[in-house]
Amino acid sequence: MLLKNSNNLKQILKADNVLTKLEERYCYANDACNLEQSLKIPESVVFVETIEDVQNVIKFANAHNIPIVSRGAGTNMVGACVCNNGGIVLNFSKMNKIIEINPLDMFVKVQPGVVLGDLKKEVEKFNLFFPPDPSNYRVSTVGGAIAQSSGGAMALKYGTTKDYVLSLKVVTADGSVMTIGTNTTKESVGYHLAQLIVGSEGTLAVIVEATLKLIPKPTARKAISAYFNSSEEMTLAVNQILASNILPTAIDFMDNNSIKTVNDFAKCGLKSEFQYLLIIDLDGSEALVNENLALIQNILRTKDSFCIEIAENNKEAELIWKARRSSYAASTRLAPDVVSDDLIVPRSNIAKLLDSITEITNKYNLQVCLVGHIGDGNMHPQFVLDLEDEVQFRNYKKAKDEIYRVVINLGGTISAEHGVGLEKKDYLKYCVDAKSLEYMKIIKKIFDPKNILNPGKIFDI
Amino acid sequence: MLLKNSNNLKQILKADNVLTKLEERYCYANDACNLEQSLKIPESVVFVETIEDVQNVIKFANAHNIPIVSRGAGTNMVGACVCNNGGIVLNFSKMNKIIEINPLDMFVKVQPGVVLGDLKKEVEKFNLFFPPDPSNYRVSTVGGAIAQSSGGAMALKYGTTKDYVLSLKVVTADGSVMTIGTNTTKESVGYHLAQLIVGSEGTLAVIVEATLKLIPKPTARKAISAYFNSSEEMTLAVNQILASNILPTAIDFMDNNSIKTVNDFAKCGLKSEFQYLLIIDLDGSEALVNENLALIQNILRTKDSFCIEIAENNKEAELIWKARRSSYAASTRLAPDVVSDDLIVPRSNIAKLLDSITEITNKYNLQVCLVGHIGDGNMHPQFVLDLEDEVQFRNYKKAKDEIYRVVINLGGTISAEHGVGLEKKDYLKYCVDAKSLEYMKIIKKIFDPKNILNPGKIFDI
Repeated sequence: MLLKNSNNLKQILKADNVLTKLEERYCYANDACNLEQSLKIPESVVFVETIEDVQNVIKFANAHNIPIVSRGAGTNMVGACVCNNGGIVLNFSKMNKIIEINPLDMFVKVQPGVVLGDLKKEVEKFNLFFPPDPSNYRVSTVGGAIAQSSGGAMALKYGTTKDYVLSLKVVTADGSVMTIGTNTTKESVGYHLAQLIVGSEGTLAVIVEATLKLIPKPTARKAISAYFNSSEEMTLAVNQILASNILPTAIDFMDNNSIKTVNDFAKCGLKSEFQYLLIIDLDGSEALVNENLALIQNILRTKDSFCIEIAENNKEAELIWKARRSSYAASTRLAPDVVSDDLIVPRSNIAKLLDSITEITNKYNLQVCLVGHIGDGNMHPQFVLDLEDEVQFRNYKKAKDEIYRVVINLGGTISAEHGVGLEKKDYLKYCVDAKSLEYMKIIKKIFDPKNILNPGKIFDI
Repeated sequence: MLLKNSNNLKQILKADNVLTKLEERYCYANDACNLEQSLKIPESVVFVETIEDVQNVIKFANAHNIPIVSRGAGTNMVGACVCNNGGIVLNFSKMNKIIEINPLDMFVKVQPGVVLGDLKKEVEKFNLFFPPDPSNYRVSTVGGAIAQSSGGAMALKYGTTKDYVLSLKVVTADGSVMTIGTNTTKESVGYHLAQLIVGSEGTLAVIVEATLKLIPKPTARKAISAYFNSSEEMTLAVNQILASNILPTAIDFMDNNSIKTVNDFAKCGLKSEFQYLLIIDLDGSEALVNENLALIQNILRTKDSFCIEIAENNKEAELIWKARRSSYAASTRLAPDVVSDDLIVPRSNIAKLLDSITEITNKYNLQVCLVGHIGDGNMHPQFVLDLEDEVQFRNYKKAKDEIYRVVINLGGTISAEHGVGLEKKDYLKYCVDAKSLEYMKIIKKIFDPKNILNPGKIFDI
């Protein structure tokens, strides 16, 4: 079957766009979710270069009931782009062109394989800004960001990827091309199908082109950091900042484990004698940023905070953010495996969630580095462990289960910006209304009657 | 049938919540779309007071195949809340409670009958802000704003209603209650069904509760106005402002017909010797607003603009906006009928659209007052006419048809924030991909297999 499919695909695509060797296909057996259970070597990996390539592969897959898994950089954290049911990996890394930057209408049209960091850099040349900034934006792709409804630190002020999708071109399960949405700032012409595709993790259609909204690039940027020894004092500061008519670009934090780990990795001089580091980013005009900075400094001074430091410009701000963003990479040095989770609760429950995570991971003797977008209530606990150690693995599963229950009890949910994929689908029923889950499954069946588009992700049907 | 249904409804609801008299029901025969063709007197009009009321009425309607038309203030401009197929009007004006304002988590939970203006006022007491501001926000309701995906002038900076919907409680066609979405700042747990309901005009489910995102209230507000005699110079100014790293709260305009009409109506001293009035609103902190104001003044001075005036605070800004917002009410005094349209094109094509509208309405000898959110590319031509005059009616239809073609050719669409309703459904196929329209119809059939929820709106199935 394997050989036959690959030979057929070589009829459809350029021969060197079809990877057949085991060692080549092995590289696509996993994504950044790191859980062995999802590891399955795809039968074929194909590079697509045009929309027609995508159509042809999907028509072939549709005719032969072969699963199709779309993949950009493979940075997904929940197993959303692994071939757990076998099939063909559609690799978009060659469809990485920026088709049009339109400065007047403030949009950019891209192929799905464009790296987010490249997109950001290119539009900045036109004085424009594409805010979504998942920590891995230097490598992750637009298609993945749309498919997983990606956020990032700046979601606090600027929202997530979904807020920037004007229109999408997709290939449906039968190989047709469909355009959804309009390239205008607003539209109210029928159902918002584009928003249905955003976050659908490749299960409804395959994104082949996206037109994304841009906004004027802020002219100034500063960041302020402060250390805390109490989660309660830190969250009080966060809440008071947000109650002061200020909407910072981002409010992130790192716990002591993360501070130490990042320090060891990047030698960046974070102060490991404190329990928490709070980072607040500000952008806008010079006047606005300075005004907000003064207000925030005053708030921080009234709290039990230490070593307040100001990054005076973009370059200095990037230094502190580089430390924050490298927490995942740094954690990977501590143990064979790192599993980065993604939980969100209403802001008022952040301190409770922080304390619960600490309590539960202590109980199960698990090492966790806690970072996250605290201003959004979004936590990324990074479990540092050896998944092949049976005791650790069992404890991790128990801890995860207990933490998820806490999150749901606190009015939150189990995924803010990573998606559900394989990793979280058993928990979906606990945080999604049963009837709405039914409708999701019916919608899946309409868009993908043969269940060939990323089957087994989000839910089983 | 009429009497029987009404009697049955009186078993389900409090008797005085069921309107049966012809003169009572007649009031609900039309909405603000003003086109006689949609006029049909509903068989029953019922006031619902609880979610259970809604469930019971829908279960009854479902059992007897009776159309259900949800209605808030009836301000819709496209006939989305008229009973063109007969049936029951679900009147939400008694479900007008603000259930919870949560300042820390920055959300508000409301019943659908809450008037937008009341919502805005109440959350401002907590130093919070709900931006969506359709011109009729002082009377229109939250349920309608969600159902029609309403925008408003401030959409330029703050987006539209869809960007503020965290979660919805809806009653589905079989009378079940379904909760969709999460009350957190972000979520990525399955398909975005809430975004599918937003803008679905009551055709998929009936909204019975909404939790809406709030943002910190800006502390300062100023507005700047200037007159122009050339559409080209005005749009150049708009484009240059937006290219200067500034995102004003709103950029609106009025043409000479609107200026004169509003002046006659509201005696507000607008300068009718000029062709266009441009209004730019700014909010944020004092420092930001002043900084942007200076920049915009400089830009306006380099263009052929006249009588630049500054509104120094909220009260003064509201005066000029009151004039802009009263354009519809003012137009209604000119002729028996006013039909307000809602068109949007990419910003780069605004001047072309303005000129085309003038040319086409001149050709057909039609009086039109042009206003709109020019910064968004969103125009609201208000046709002032006597729809019972056969020649005028025929000319209006021809002009509308030609203008819609121009809009679509310019890359725009026929509804930005009013919806499709009855009025625009014949045109939907010209601005929506055929395959996506198919999917919309299939989705409609899943959510509403008996076609009882606002049947015949958006499209026929």
